[in-house]
Amino acid sequence: MGASNLKCRECAAEYALEARYVCERCFGPLEVAYENARLADDIPGLRRRIQGGPQNIWRYADFLPLTAQPGPSGRTSSRAALPAGCTPLIRADRLAERLGLREVWVKNDAANPTHSFKDRVVSVASARARELGYEVLACASTGNLANSVAAHGAALGMETYVFIPSDLEEQKILATGVYGTNLVKVRGNYDDVNRLCTELSGERDWAFVNVNMRPYYAEGSKTLAYEIAEQLGWELPDRCVVPIASGSLYTKIAKGFEEWLGLGLVEGELPVMNGAQAQGCSPVATAWEAGHDVCRPVKPDTIAKSLAIGNPADGPYALELARRSDGAIDAVSDDEIRAGIRLLAETTGVFTETAGGTTTATLAKLAARGDIDPSERVVLVITGEGLKTLDAVRGTFESHEIGASFDEFVEQVEGAGARA
Amino acid sequence: MGASNLKCRECAAEYALEARYVCERCFGPLEVAYENARLADDIPGLRRRIQGGPQNIWRYADFLPLTAQPGPSGRTSSRAALPAGCTPLIRADRLAERLGLREVWVKNDAANPTHSFKDRVVSVASARARELGYEVLACASTGNLANSVAAHGAALGMETYVFIPSDLEEQKILATGVYGTNLVKVRGNYDDVNRLCTELSGERDWAFVNVNMRPYYAEGSKTLAYEIAEQLGWELPDRCVVPIASGSLYTKIAKGFEEWLGLGLVEGELPVMNGAQAQGCSPVATAWEAGHDVCRPVKPDTIAKSLAIGNPADGPYALELARRSDGAIDAVSDDEIRAGIRLLAETTGVFTETAGGTTTATLAKLAARGDIDPSERVVLVITGEGLKTLDAVRGTFESHEIGASFDEFVEQVEGAGARA
Repeated sequence: MGASNLKCRECAAEYALEARYVCERCFGPLEVAYENARLADDIPGLRRRIQGGPQNIWRYADFLPLTAQPGPSGRTSSRAALPAGCTPLIRADRLAERLGLREVWVKNDAANPTHSFKDRVVSVASARARELGYEVLACASTGNLANSVAAHGAALGMETYVFIPSDLEEQKILATGVYGTNLVKVRGNYDDVNRLCTELSGERDWAFVNVNMRPYYAEGSKTLAYEIAEQLGWELPDRCVVPIASGSLYTKIAKGFEEWLGLGLVEGELPVMNGAQAQGCSPVATAWEAGHDVCRPVKPDTIAKSLAIGNPADGPYALELARRSDGAIDAVSDDEIRAGIRLLAETTGVFTETAGGTTTATLAKLAARGDIDPSERVVLVITGEGLKTLDAVRGTFESHEIGASFDEFVEQVEGAGARA
Repeated sequence: MGASNLKCRECAAEYALEARYVCERCFGPLEVAYENARLADDIPGLRRRIQGGPQNIWRYADFLPLTAQPGPSGRTSSRAALPAGCTPLIRADRLAERLGLREVWVKNDAANPTHSFKDRVVSVASARARELGYEVLACASTGNLANSVAAHGAALGMETYVFIPSDLEEQKILATGVYGTNLVKVRGNYDDVNRLCTELSGERDWAFVNVNMRPYYAEGSKTLAYEIAEQLGWELPDRCVVPIASGSLYTKIAKGFEEWLGLGLVEGELPVMNGAQAQGCSPVATAWEAGHDVCRPVKPDTIAKSLAIGNPADGPYALELARRSDGAIDAVSDDEIRAGIRLLAETTGVFTETAGGTTTATLAKLAARGDIDPSERVVLVITGEGLKTLDAVRGTFESHEIGASFDEFVEQVEGAGARA
């Protein structure tokens, strides 16, 4: 594989590619480092290999921290689970028009197996966990990760433990329990759940995908950047709007773009990176507005539960990225999130959950504020599925109820001035 | 295009490719006929063209009733909607093992844009509707079709009218209304809704995708067969298990296989075709068991609402196909459907709605009955997403609730004998 070691983001100390996530010297977070500069020697060949690869994230195996090479269909024993990635990038002209923009694309990651981008990170983490010999997968989750870990465990035949805040949306609880996982509801918010899992990861020999497997897990998010670039014909967008919970997705998408820029697989410069948070849990947006380098933890209170991380691990790196890319980090209200869900659905046919409502509302805000040049090509990242947060749309539209008769239709629907 | 005309299934009378669905002479149903025998002249070239096509149903444009040729990305003005098809075909070894079978594949059509196979038929019907100049899309739906028509209308910027039974699952209602459609709940069952829409289609100049556009609409289902064959490396499975509501999907999948067999694009013979119904709405299975050629209408009463068509339009053709392919049509109980949903989820990581629970339960029944030779390659068709029928899994699994403490985890989860 191209991955060479784990490296501390703060002090650059190096470690073997083990189940390890914190630097022993400085307690900084560890990240996977690669030795794949030689890939730059044959860019046309590399593009062909990617294009001829499987229709899932394993087409980008050169940039992921797995040992075994995939077979022709992208399957090795460690990857024979749910095929994630290669989700549609949809040109959204009707959305662009509504916002006064020229070119908007929707990257719809609700098309993944369990309908969120988490299938990317869980695919990588679970494959690496099997390479390292683990038999149990576990996670601390705000919901989407719970769905994905339970599903991947079922597909792989691995035992799973899934820890969630007890007040999670029922949709996400049912869509997790169905896979036959050990489902543990924790009275508390995500940050409480995460603390418990961090403690447990020291006491049990389990692969917690977002704790001790975190360096591998986080690498999965880079595939979103690779796909966007490949789907745009090996070009980069001018701007990306991405939700921020822990900040990992936001920063890893940029890492993906930068890796390919560094190799010469794409040209140009890093897109402007806009981060999106809910006002009810906006530690990074708040720090951004105040000009701080670090985030002050908050207690979440928002309908965007999948973004409700009050103490975001990658907050400082997100702030640094926003600054470096000429971007910004904005927060939108719950009402704006609901309106964002409706706006995206009505103009593109894509029904997203509250996190996607957050990015759509943020895009609308940037457009209204005049932050986006009309000539820009913008990618809106949609990370999850509307069916998982149905409460957010209840009561946002009208319907008619009639008996099964033509006359009732004419009187009660058309008579009431249906939208036609 | 390869489509030449509409043709009556009963008396073979021919009509132009218009918005027409019933034979004027004998009242038989109309079907699209093709003149594409010349495609057989260059099978390797045809395979290459398909493989080089877009990652959606338009790669099979040679076999679909559209006029315009798609562009390199599969987009023409009439197809620039939600990209349907090219859903995963997943090898399900753990499911096969549980059932004592050798080779089972899951065709997961929940991966479509609105998470059911209906996106295939709506893509074709809406594209043809635009070619014919229609400005309004409409449908009679048991839920999934409602989602799909509303979403495609939003993506295309077309007005939509969606008619559903008023007792439909709330998930499907919310996931329809969000797109900004004219949503009409009809007090009655699907057959009442369908009668009203048939009447309306004579009075309004709208494209009812499953009434006056039905011949085009139904052709979309063939793409499921094409994909299965292509994904198996241009081979046919030995057996398919397919749900039956109107009988259209079941018979059109066979039509797809037969078209490709006829051209020589695949070799062998038509797979054994097993139909799956819910006992609470099993007019076709009942007729099959009694040895009848036609179905007696029933009043549906089952949790499998997406299969709850009491008067199935293609019932006689489904019976004929089961006979011709050495297949059968079985019915399973609501409890078996719930167990089928759990079985599929636990062994594959795929969470399906009640219709998929019906096919999974039917596969389990066939396996238990010894109907399936151990050497067979079986494809299980999963038509929709579990998030749309969450009620079916509520109460089917256990969970733990604890405070955020290691000790509580040890005592209350591990102490309670968690599954580990």
